[in-house]
Amino acid sequence: MKNLLVPAAAVAALLLTLPGESFAQGAVRWQPLPTVAPAPADNPTTPAKVRLGKMLFFDPRLSSTGTVSCFSCHNIMEGGDDHRPVSIGVEAQRGGRNAPTVFNAAFLSVQFWDGRAATLEDQAKGPPVNPIEMGMKNFGEEISRIQAIPGYRPYFVQAFGPGNVVTMDNAAKAIAAYERTLITPGSAYDRYVEGAHNALTAQQIRGMNDFASVGCAGCHQGPNFSGPPLPMGQGFFVKFPVYPQSPYVAKYDLMKDLGRYDVTHNPADKNVWRVPGLRNLLYTAPYMHNGSVKTLPEAVRVMASTQLNRELTDQQVNDITAFLGSLTGPFPKQTMPRLPPTPGDLLGR
Amino acid sequence: MKNLLVPAAAVAALLLTLPGESFAQGAVRWQPLPTVAPAPADNPTTPAKVRLGKMLFFDPRLSSTGTVSCFSCHNIMEGGDDHRPVSIGVEAQRGGRNAPTVFNAAFLSVQFWDGRAATLEDQAKGPPVNPIEMGMKNFGEEISRIQAIPGYRPYFVQAFGPGNVVTMDNAAKAIAAYERTLITPGSAYDRYVEGAHNALTAQQIRGMNDFASVGCAGCHQGPNFSGPPLPMGQGFFVKFPVYPQSPYVAKYDLMKDLGRYDVTHNPADKNVWRVPGLRNLLYTAPYMHNGSVKTLPEAVRVMASTQLNRELTDQQVNDITAFLGSLTGPFPKQTMPRLPPTPGDLLGR
Repeated sequence: MKNLLVPAAAVAALLLTLPGESFAQGAVRWQPLPTVAPAPADNPTTPAKVRLGKMLFFDPRLSSTGTVSCFSCHNIMEGGDDHRPVSIGVEAQRGGRNAPTVFNAAFLSVQFWDGRAATLEDQAKGPPVNPIEMGMKNFGEEISRIQAIPGYRPYFVQAFGPGNVVTMDNAAKAIAAYERTLITPGSAYDRYVEGAHNALTAQQIRGMNDFASVGCAGCHQGPNFSGPPLPMGQGFFVKFPVYPQSPYVAKYDLMKDLGRYDVTHNPADKNVWRVPGLRNLLYTAPYMHNGSVKTLPEAVRVMASTQLNRELTDQQVNDITAFLGSLTGPFPKQTMPRLPPTPGDLLGR
Repeated sequence: MKNLLVPAAAVAALLLTLPGESFAQGAVRWQPLPTVAPAPADNPTTPAKVRLGKMLFFDPRLSSTGTVSCFSCHNIMEGGDDHRPVSIGVEAQRGGRNAPTVFNAAFLSVQFWDGRAATLEDQAKGPPVNPIEMGMKNFGEEISRIQAIPGYRPYFVQAFGPGNVVTMDNAAKAIAAYERTLITPGSAYDRYVEGAHNALTAQQIRGMNDFASVGCAGCHQGPNFSGPPLPMGQGFFVKFPVYPQSPYVAKYDLMKDLGRYDVTHNPADKNVWRVPGLRNLLYTAPYMHNGSVKTLPEAVRVMASTQLNRELTDQQVNDITAFLGSLTGPFPKQTMPRLPPTPGDLLGR
């Protein structure tokens, strides 16, 4: 996996060189979210895969205890995360990082806070075999669990054809295909940059201009505010905090987790993180990789201080917060899947 | 709460004295499931209550950790239970009994295995403040949690009018109203007894006749196979096992849990249980109050032995199992609720 680690100072130049649909206001190219998420060549999004993937996404039987599903930490009935500082997996184990939202994850070029998965397909294979998340021993145990629910096979066949298709790779492909439908184009912001000048309030427009002029858009750019469009697997990584002397760093313990360094063991990657998207933040409190910051205005203050060495005025904070609120929804309407029945010997006590 | 504890021998006489729509075949009056569940006079089912109740039913923020909802143990995407022998609540605590399905619970005249709640409204208040289920300290803490999510208030107002309506009683009423929509009329069995003579297979009809002649229908009668229609709060209780010398009693440890005795402390209530319904059993393995019996054919053998002192032939077991399969679904189609956003300070680590 290639990395794109961008010094904050070099980002401004990058802004004006990006391709794609855009709307000029100030120095930033504002881009609406596409209405279809890109899919890799070896996993085109099909209705049969999406249907199967939705079933697997909601199925707690994919965890050791039968109680934790993708949905447990990625609640798509709310913000696509789990509304907790850090997640709780099987046997009440706490994770170390705040669950990122699954909404619009399809527009991220790498997955997880530290970018350790190149694709949604790779990401989907992580939590099931993480001992403190879904707790299955290995892929073999996981796919055996799915194979032990006979009602799943017809859905795998419809999605992937006949033969030995109830595989971990196909399960991950189906989940990824479903996740590519969990996108939220058409927010007030999107409508505004597509020409609906009344879609934003005056305060939101002030906040949008502040967002650009203060420097937030240096990293939080592109349609998902998670960086420039990059090839899948090429991450957009930034140091956080850039200014460790910010008083918020100690207050919120922002340097304890070394981020990408834990993946690469490269000293240059200490406290380096994938730039997260900013859509639907009203639904994803609390904030930061450790879930330590409880409110969105405070998160705006923290980021301005730690990344830009700026102390914002209350009006700037409120206006930027109002602008960020314009990046909310609409969330895709969802019918509930029907899951196949459980053999009585599937799970122990 | 009045109890109706029926000696097995006295049940046959009861069968022919019950009112209501019925279909005579053998000695049993076969009744289809009503298409609307009854509601108490003080909680008529309304669309606004059902909508709110569905939101609350799916909301894990009603538990201490923010990870356990009604849905966690009553998975309406599958059989309305949790496919585990016993449930797991907050902090990985195991419960003592198998989660009953929420589907068609609206047709039970008392709730819980031991009948300790008279209505769905009463039942809905139990798990939230059970320390090993959802773990809230008391009703006050629970309703404070809901009140701390401001987006809920408009839904309470729409369901219950203006004023101080975000209350535990109203939350329970809304959940109960939603649960009254979780019913499964129109199964193959229902269509058969309504006149569609091709709705059942020859084997299922043989099993239906065996079910009556062997004596299963002595207790498992009425539209939900959970006993005769009784006023809400009046339970239909039966000793289980009636024949403690059955080899299955030791094998599956069926007498350890004293059932209703733990509620009443009346020695006559030792090993006495509310008669559970039999619909959708293909989706609710494993079986019995302790989830000890893994397959439906084995459950049929166990019940014939422990309650009727009969050893069935393999054909009888298979035919009765086939008949029970005719009591499956159709499950109501469900859209997913949208839940209001979470304040960042709602939950701790």
